[in-house]
This record gives sequence, structure tokens and C-alpha cells, in this order.
Amino acid sequence: MIKAGIIGATGYAGAELVRILSGHPECEIAAISSVSFEGKAISEVYPAYYGLNDMVCEDADSVVEKSDVIFAALPHGLSQELAQRCFDLGKIFIDLGADFRLENEDDYKQWYGGSYVNKELHQNSVYALPELFRKNIAGKKTIANPGCYTTGVPLALAPAIAGGFVELKGIIADCKSGVTGSGRGLTQGTHYPDLNEGFHAYKVAAHRHTPEIEQTLSHLAGQKVKLTFVPHLLPINRGILSTCYARLKPGVTKEQLRKAYEEFYKDEYFVRLLPEGMTADIHNIKYSNFCDVSIYTDERTSTFIAISAIDNMVKGAAGQAVQNMNIVFGLDEKCGLEFIPPAF
Amino acid sequence: MIKAGIIGATGYAGAELVRILSGHPECEIAAISSVSFEGKAISEVYPAYYGLNDMVCEDADSVVEKSDVIFAALPHGLSQELAQRCFDLGKIFIDLGADFRLENEDDYKQWYGGSYVNKELHQNSVYALPELFRKNIAGKKTIANPGCYTTGVPLALAPAIAGGFVELKGIIADCKSGVTGSGRGLTQGTHYPDLNEGFHAYKVAAHRHTPEIEQTLSHLAGQKVKLTFVPHLLPINRGILSTCYARLKPGVTKEQLRKAYEEFYKDEYFVRLLPEGMTADIHNIKYSNFCDVSIYTDERTSTFIAISAIDNMVKGAAGQAVQNMNIVFGLDEKCGLEFIPPAF
Amino acid sequence: MIKAGIIGATGYAGAELVRILSGHPECEIAAISSVSFEGKAISEVYPAYYGLNDMVCEDADSVVEKSDVIFAALPHGLSQELAQRCFDLGKIFIDLGADFRLENEDDYKQWYGGSYVNKELHQNSVYALPELFRKNIAGKKTIANPGCYTTGVPLALAPAIAGGFVELKGIIADCKSGVTGSGRGLTQGTHYPDLNEGFHAYKVAAHRHTPEIEQTLSHLAGQKVKLTFVPHLLPINRGILSTCYARLKPGVTKEQLRKAYEEFYKDEYFVRLLPEGMTADIHNIKYSNFCDVSIYTDERTSTFIAISAIDNMVKGAAGQAVQNMNIVFGLDEKCGLEFIPPAF
Amino acid sequence: MIKAGIIGATGYAGAELVRILSGHPECEIAAISSVSFEGKAISEVYPAYYGLNDMVCEDADSVVEKSDVIFAALPHGLSQELAQRCFDLGKIFIDLGADFRLENEDDYKQWYGGSYVNKELHQNSVYALPELFRKNIAGKKTIANPGCYTTGVPLALAPAIAGGFVELKGIIADCKSGVTGSGRGLTQGTHYPDLNEGFHAYKVAAHRHTPEIEQTLSHLAGQKVKLTFVPHLLPINRGILSTCYARLKPGVTKEQLRKAYEEFYKDEYFVRLLPEGMTADIHNIKYSNFCDVSIYTDERTSTFIAISAIDNMVKGAAGQAVQNMNIVFGLDEKCGLEFIPPAF
Repeated sequence: MIKAGIIGATGYAGAELVRILSGHPECEIAAISSVSFEGKAISEVYPAYYGLNDMVCEDADSVVEKSDVIFAALPHGLSQELAQRCFDLGKIFIDLGADFRLENEDDYKQWYGGSYVNKELHQNSVYALPELFRKNIAGKKTIANPGCYTTGVPLALAPAIAGGFVELKGIIADCKSGVTGSGRGLTQGTHYPDLNEGFHAYKVAAHRHTPEIEQTLSHLAGQKVKLTFVPHLLPINRGILSTCYARLKPGVTKEQLRKAYEEFYKDEYFVRLLPEGMTADIHNIKYSNFCDVSIYTDERTSTFIAISAIDNMVKGAAGQAVQNMNIVFGLDEKCGLEFIPPAF
Repeated sequence: MIKAGIIGATGYAGAELVRILSGHPECEIAAISSVSFEGKAISEVYPAYYGLNDMVCEDADSVVEKSDVIFAALPHGLSQELAQRCFDLGKIFIDLGADFRLENEDDYKQWYGGSYVNKELHQNSVYALPELFRKNIAGKKTIANPGCYTTGVPLALAPAIAGGFVELKGIIADCKSGVTGSGRGLTQGTHYPDLNEGFHAYKVAAHRHTPEIEQTLSHLAGQKVKLTFVPHLLPINRGILSTCYARLKPGVTKEQLRKAYEEFYKDEYFVRLLPEGMTADIHNIKYSNFCDVSIYTDERTSTFIAISAIDNMVKGAAGQAVQNMNIVFGLDEKCGLEFIPPAF
Repeated sequence: MIKAGIIGATGYAGAELVRILSGHPECEIAAISSVSFEGKAISEVYPAYYGLNDMVCEDADSVVEKSDVIFAALPHGLSQELAQRCFDLGKIFIDLGADFRLENEDDYKQWYGGSYVNKELHQNSVYALPELFRKNIAGKKTIANPGCYTTGVPLALAPAIAGGFVELKGIIADCKSGVTGSGRGLTQGTHYPDLNEGFHAYKVAAHRHTPEIEQTLSHLAGQKVKLTFVPHLLPINRGILSTCYARLKPGVTKEQLRKAYEEFYKDEYFVRLLPEGMTADIHNIKYSNFCDVSIYTDERTSTFIAISAIDNMVKGAAGQAVQNMNIVFGLDEKCGLEFIPPAF
Repeated sequence: MIKAGIIGATGYAGAELVRILSGHPECEIAAISSVSFEGKAISEVYPAYYGLNDMVCEDADSVVEKSDVIFAALPHGLSQELAQRCFDLGKIFIDLGADFRLENEDDYKQWYGGSYVNKELHQNSVYALPELFRKNIAGKKTIANPGCYTTGVPLALAPAIAGGFVELKGIIADCKSGVTGSGRGLTQGTHYPDLNEGFHAYKVAAHRHTPEIEQTLSHLAGQKVKLTFVPHLLPINRGILSTCYARLKPGVTKEQLRKAYEEFYKDEYFVRLLPEGMTADIHNIKYSNFCDVSIYTDERTSTFIAISAIDNMVKGAAGQAVQNMNIVFGLDEKCGLEFIPPAF
């Protein structure tokens, strides 16, 4: 059994890791930590786990010591030192935060305001979006788990961009996220009466996930891509729907695009390319690691539209982190992640 | 007192008209009708009105007879004959349906599958989006009240398009609507467990409001405009948020746009142009006739973003219809519509 | 025009007072105050009011000075000194908090932990639930506005208890409240993802409204009444449904009870006694000052069941406070409160 | 592998059985049927299952033929003939409907309007609420799976009644159910805008689950028990909270009750008796087979209060049916049911 540790277990992503790893057949949770709740049981913070997982939160050092693989679900800026320590101890470090996601340190400085302490460690890390960069992951010790929007948008657009079917200028991602994406911390905007029966955009064209999405799209395109990214907050708990728009290149047909998508995702268990007539819906992927994708062409305006739906807490965070653990440890990528989304 | 009649009073738009007109100081409801509930009280259908408005639904003929102004909230195709009758009787007809909205009969044929019975009647009708076409409304007998998306999207974009600040190619409207927009009729998609905690697009680039939006934008631009329009369904009762994207023309600045918007809407009571730092939110306009607009420029990608929020049942239907009635009857345009949106 | 002031205007009850008084034809808001937001506009706190009410929050002294009637929406313990000051100045003080609600100081000590500074002021105050104690209100300067549960439960049970139809032992009130009842302050329990798709009881048989409800029921019964009161938190914004149970006295019939209820409420505009076949529903009274009541007898178990629905922010707080202002100033009790609840 | 068949697979309970059995390690789904969707894939009805379970709905005969155990999730009245056929073929029949739940045929006639075709079959069937009647289940071929309310209320009250701690007269169950309890069929009451932001009771003291709850409580008490049962509809998808009230017998203490509950449930994996300070919440048991119970005594009124929370679709339907299958087939009762409830 792989011994897994979770640092930051009482945040939402950490708590979801606890849930998913509890059902993983090849892995056991060795230790969990939390700065805010050290000494308290995870089930005091999340009574849903009462009697099922009552592990007590320790400190980060204990987690590192007891574990083969360390998941860190921390605010950005706190992972670099931990990653270094794990690397030095020969342990796998899977970072659900942003510290290792951006290849270009300048982007990190601009959007997050920090710097890279050990550039070599960053160079040895891998940006682990398995469906797009699987071959880079195996053998790595420092795993940068993508963010939520940064999983949903690229999976919607990848075959169109990689195949050269759309213009690289003018790409737009209009995304709508459930509120768990904002975390467990209290804010006025996530106070129930303020959010309920409302809907709005936030950080319009100014969200930190922008450079990370652009990095992935640029790798797919083989050249620098910029996009306009506008996230919105949905009054639901889970899920992200990404509606992405790109100008079709002249002569590209609907049939070409469908064929390209089918080919691109034909071996991807966790991406469900929906047939014509079905539309990606957050309703259908909640509590699962699936990414549903539906595609459209608006011939009136020569616009390609790709929509993806993921559970921001699973494929957009904890589930993908477990998928990456499976890859690193040579397990079946689906191991512990095959739960069917509930129908309602 | 103006005598108002409502045909189709038991649909959502009709019921909202009942509510709004009940509080209008210069108007009284003379009669209401409903095909499905003839002979029943409106308060049997909507118990919220019990004891406050228990009017019994009659037939359409009675409504026409008893009223000075007839509001029709009917499925498309049913208004033309009624409008003709009202016109012949010299009565005002305000159509909340689609039969008089499209100037080009071909568009109507293509998107709705019908034809124009009396072309002259159509030529004498007016497309009544007051903030954009106010001067055309007074003196008209046949009033085409705009639809919901077709109010929200043009009000978001009008100053940018009218002022020539954005490219007319590649405009995108990504809209999210509360579920009352789908009406009172039962469908699987609006069954509570199917919609709740879900979110999806529908009629992607194929919604009937497309030609109506394009008609308005074309008038503003002085030339034919096409756009890509993708509506989504929100798990909330009311409200539409329209996030609209357009390419900035070279050299256009953020400041120019703000000034243009301020100028364009400076006398418009029902459009609240929000200052920088505030974002249009459905939460803030529910149950009111206001349209909140917030604007952004993404300089990284030369993209202009305008977001509007309206209550689809008020500014997007019944409220705007009353606003049009006020104009036609020479009342203060705000009369009976000055309710402040609740804060929660 | 009556000059009204609101102390604590940025809490939910205060903000709702702003909304309701803005539409009151005989009253204008002279000043508002807020400790947390002094110097800020109410519309910065509640952007729904932007452009419609941008009054700046002053301090409590200014409000008292500028107003004929002072509404205080404050945490308990803060109203006594203010009430005294208003009394000394000959101004009307309407307290939406708990400081003047309990006649028995011991109850106040036990449940709130405070004491009565000026007992005479308390004796001159009035507990102002108009439908039950209207005749006591006129002429008073210090008005204790009832709480939310303490409005809903007595209005459900009053005719049955006053008429002697039910046993006074064993009365149960199982209440379910929308989340605005918990106020604007952030708590983990009102964080969107924690509350959404959940439902639970709180302060089981230990809520501070217990002695207040018992006080009212005891007045109605003419003897000391105790009840079991269990509140629950609903994942909706507004409204309280109170399902109340009492043992029928031997021989009492369903018909007797209905007649008693009809008689008791026949002149009460704001209480809608629903006919058989209709059931009180929060859906039907939202954003209004109405209290819907439906009654049932379970003959199998000789149990009487009365259910009331109110909007906790209107009839349970700000609306009732305005109703009380109307009474004190000799206006029509309905003045400014006749808004029909929206049907959806 | 046990071969399981599901008759009525496209209703909510049937679809939930599909989901749960898909993850069961000792069982495979052999066939499914649906009257409404015969010939269609279950994933056409529930796109959440797309690509994961695309089984095509057959007719009931095929299901019976191919399966060792037949689950029937049908409207009442349709199971008796099927049960007979399975019995004759020596196959296990687990009925999620009401046809075999009531021991007294008169109750069935009164509340459901049908009769028992083969009384012997009914006598050989078992009412299978495992935590209360486990020892009766093994060896039976016809299994009556309890309803949702009829699981939640008895599990809340069982130790208090079985131990003789409370009066048997005057028991009240005030229950609140998520809307999936109303099924997949469309009704005005479950139309999104009608239910959302509302809350109401229904079938007040007249719900068909009343005699079934009374039957269970009577077994526990050793004498006939009647109760007052009032269900309410929550605007959430899943879960039932049952708040139950009973008069304490003289001298009974809080400590006695806690001890009795601890003893009663000490070996029950699926019942989580919560310690003082924790309150049963639908939020914490969603998508799981757990029943959380919290207990209280109101000493002021000598009232005992027990609250249970279950997922109506799992412990209240499909999960409990699988639990019963496990018992009948001699598997670990938890097999395939150990999923931890998500924390949000």
C-alpha cells in the first residue's frame, strides 16, 4: 500500500483528497495536517466523515515523514520549501497549489508576486495534466497539479488548437464555476444570501489562471497563444462549465473537427466526448473525475464553440491529483477513480 | 385610469404583468384571460395572489372589449390576429411575443416558421426597446415588446457599437438565464432535480433570439451585424447575465469607452452604468426594471467586455411592457416601476 | 412627511427597512447609521440600491436628531440607552431587537444575560404584534417589534389557544427559517457550500425566542403556557414556515376551529387564512408583509396542526416595524406595505 | 458474481440502483427494464452514465429471466404479480415499492386502495429494515424494502420506544424531504421556479407512509402506536430530516436515553449516533447509506426530541435495497456501500 499524506487537509481540496483516497484500493492515508486545526480530527471540521475518518491533524513535518507521496493543498507560496524537502528525501510531492505550474518565472512574479527559490527544482518538476502531457509525468518527483479552470479550458480546446483548426487570436473562455472553487474561508461573496439567486463575473480578464491556460494552449499550438478569460460564480457547490470560442480557419468543416476530437480523445477514459445532440452539463459529472466535452460550429459566424464540464474538486483538483499519483506509481490511471457520477 | 387587459395571464410573463399592474397608480386591470385556466381565478394558479387579486380568467374577446390597452403574453404565432383586431378597434396592443419583433419577414419564416398575415400592420408596428428606440414608440398602436436576451445583449453593447469603438465581426454574447425564462410549462429540463446543482448551454448558436439581437445591433451600427449567441440555463428563478465580447478597434481606449457609455446612458433611469470596481450581478436587479451594465477592456488581447444584468421577467418582459405602455399613454416612463430591487 | 431614521441600517433588517421606507408614501428616510460602515453609502454595502438610495451612514446621534421615528436594528443589549434618549426627546423608538420584548426581566436575564436599566421605560413600552395586541400600541413611544419566529408561531396558534380549543401542555413548534434570519455576519454555517443542499435543526429547545413565544401564548391563554420550540435552517434566503402541533381538547371539531380562525382573522389584512386545500408556503409570501395560515386536524391522533408562513425580513422584521409605525402615527396600517408577493 | 436485474430502472430509485450496483464488487447488473424507455439506453435517460453504463432497457420478463435477484422500483400495485413469478422461479425479489410493506391488508386497502392477491406470498415476505428486523430477513425470497420516511422516523425513535422511555400517545414526526422523493415524473410542484426558494408541508397527517411507520413503531413498543406525521418538501435534491417528538415518561433522564441509544446502535455501521453538540444534518449523509441520529431532551416541557438524517435515495431506497441483498446472499452487509459521504 502506498502511504499518502495530505498537507492542508481541512481545506476543500484537502478534504476531497481524504474522501477519494479513503476509497483507493492501493493507497492508505498515513497522516494529514492542517495549520488551522492541528490537534483536531478531520471529522470535527467535516462531520460528514464522522466515524469513517477521524484522523487527527498533525503538523506538516509528520506528514512528510510518514508518507511516500505528499499532497499539498495550500495557498500559493507555501509549497516550494515543502517540495524541496520531499525532493531531498526522495519522496513524491504533488502540489495542488500554483507554485510549480508556471514555467516562466516572470509569469509567476507578475500574477502571484513571488519568485522561484530553487530554479532547478522547478525545471525538474512537471505540469501534470495527464490527457495532454502524460508522457512527461512518469519518473518525476515534483508534480504540479493543474488548477480547475486550467483543466477545463484546455481540455475543451486542445484538439482544435493542436490540429490547427482555429485562429489563435481572439480565443475566449467564458467560464462558470461552483462556489467550492472559492474555498472554505468565509467571504461576503460566498455568504449564502449574497450568492444565492445571484450570478456575476469576477476578476474579469484578470484571473491568475490566465497565464497557466495560455501556457498549455501555447504548448498545444507550438506558438504563443493569448486568450480572454472571464470567470463567473455559480450558486451551486461544484463544477465548472467552460464555454470556449475560437474563430474557425477558412475551409475548416464541422466534420473535420468532430473527427479530430474523436481521434484526440479516443483513449482517454476521463474525457467523454459527447455525440451531437448532447451538451456538456455540470449536472452529469458532479462527484466524478470525468470531463464532458461537447462541440459546435456556428457557420453563420465561422465560430467554433467547445464546452467542457468538470467537477472542480475532482478533475479540477483532488481527483486529478490522484490520477497523477496513479501515473507516478505505475498504477492503472483509473484506480480509485472509477465512481460513476450520480444521476441527480 | 387606463384600463389594461392581459391575454395569457397565467403564463409567467402574464402573471408578472398582473403583479406589476396591480401596483400601477394610473392603470387598473380590466380583465384577464387564459386558455388553460378559463373560468378559474388567477390566485388559484398563483396562490401568492390569494385575496389580493382573485380575478377570474375570461376569454380573449372579453379582454379586448374591456380594455384600452391589451397586453398579450402568448406563444409566437397567436398575436397577429389579435393585434389586427385591436388595431381596427383603435386600441393599443402590446405584444410580449415574437410576432412583431422582426422587421424582415424572411427572418421570421426562418427562425419561427410563420409568415406575416398583414404586412401593413407590421410596418405600422414598432420594436419598442425604449432606451434605444424611444422616439419611434409614441403614437404607435402595435407595440412589439422585446424579448429577454434581446434586451440584455443590446443594452450591454449599444454604446460601443453605436460609437464605432469595436469591430462588428466576431461579436460574442454568452448569456445565462434564470429558469423562469423557460416558462411555466413542465419540461424534464426544468424539473427541479434535473436542473438543481447543474448548469449547461442550450440551443448553442441556434436560439431564436439571434436574429432579433442582430436586428438591433445592425440598427445601432448602421450596417448588418452578426453575432454568436450562446444561452445557458442557471439554477435560479430570475435574471439574465449577458457577457458580451467584441474586438476593440485599433487605438480605442478604455477611457473613450467609459465616456461613451456615460454619455449614452446619462438620462436613462433604468440603465445603471456601474463605476469601475462594481460588476453587474443578477443579485442586484431581481424584481426590478433596472439593467445594470459594467464594462471592461482586456488590453492583453484588445477585447472589450460588456456585462449586463436584467430581471428577465421585468426589464426582459412585463416591466418593459409597462414602460412601453407609459410611453404610449404619455405617462412618466417610470410610473409604477420605481421599485427598488431587494438587497437579498 | 414623517422623518424616519434607521440605526443599524447595514444589517439585513436595517437594509430591508431602507427598501420598504423608500416606497412609503407618508414617510421619508431622514438619516441612517451603521457602526461598521460609518461614512460609507448604503449602496456600497448593498449595490442593489446603487443610484436609488446612496445615503451615507452617519452615527446614531445624527439619526436620533434628524428623525421623528427611530428604528433600531441592533444586536440585543444596545437599544436601552437609545430608547431612553428617544423617550426623553419625545421621539418614537421602534426596536427591532430583543431589549424590550420580554415583560419579565428574569426571562431577559436568563436567555439574554442582561438586565433592565430603567424599569419604568420597560413598563411604558409595548410589545407590538399588531394582530394580537393592536389596542396597546397607539400612544406608546417605545415599541418592541417582535422577532421572526415569535411572529409566525403565535399567528399560527392564536385563535386555537385564545378560543380554548387545544391543550396548553405539549404544544410543539417545529420551525424552518430562511438564512437571512442569521444576519449578514459571516459564519461557517452560512457559508454557501456548507448550507446548500443541507438541512438541520439548531439550538434545539434552546432558542432565545422561546420565552417570547411563551409570553404571547400565555397572554392569549390567560395562563402560563410552555412550548417545545425547534428551529431549523433552510437553504433559501427568506421566509419562515412554522408547523405547530397541539392536542385537541375532547370534543372539539374541525369545523369549530375553522370558524374560530375565520372569526379571529376576519379583519386582518395581513393574515391570509387559507381555505381547505391550500397550504401555507414560503413561496407565496416572499417579499411581502403577509402571514399565510393553514389549519388541519388529525382525527386519528386528536392533534391540531397549524402552519404559518411569513417573510422573516418583512412581517418578521422590517415590514412589521413599518406596520407599527403606521399605527403609532395614525396612518392606514397597510400604508406602504401593500406590495403583492411575486408569484415566483 | 450475483446477477442483479432492475425493473423500473429509469425511475430515480432504479437509476440509483444502477449507480450503486455498478460499484458493487460481488454483483453485476444482468439486465434492466423500463416501460417508458424500453429499447433505449439508460444513459440516454441519465446522461451522467454516458459511456459508463449504456445498458439498454428491456422488458420485465427478460430481467426476471437473466437475474438471480430482481429489484423492482415500481409504483405500488405492480409488484405482486412479479413477486409471485420470482418466487415460483426461486429467485430473490426485492421490492422498493409498497406492495409488501404492510402486514395488515386492511391498511393497504385503506391507504393504497388495493388488495393482496396471494396472502401466502405476503406472509412469506419480510419487512426488511435491517437495523430493526435483521434476523427476519435471511432465508426470505420476497423482501419488502422500506420507504424513505419509514426508514428515517423509526431509526430516530427506535431505542426510545423499545426501551419504554417515552409515552406512546402524542408522538409527532415532522419530516422534511428533498425533492427526488417525488420521483422523476413532472409535476407543477416540482417545476423548478415553483419549488425553488419555497417550502411547504404536503399531505398533512394524510401521507401513505403513516401506517407503515406505525407498524414499525408498534413492533418496537409491543403494542399499537399511532403518530402524527407531517411531511414537507425541501428545495434540495436529496435527503430527509425527521424531527421526532415524544413525551418523556416521568423520571426518565437524558443520561438514560443516551445510554439506551448507544447500546441499541453500538453494532450498527450505518447508524451514526452523534455525540452531544453535533446535530443530524442532511448535508453530512448525502450520497451515502448512513443514518445520522442526534437526540435531545427538553426538560422544560418533558419532551424527547430525536432527529435523523438519511439520503432518501440511498438509505431510504436503493442503498438499503442493496444492504438487504447483501444480507440475503450472506455477504458482508456493507459490501458495495462503504462510500464516505462527500463533505460538500
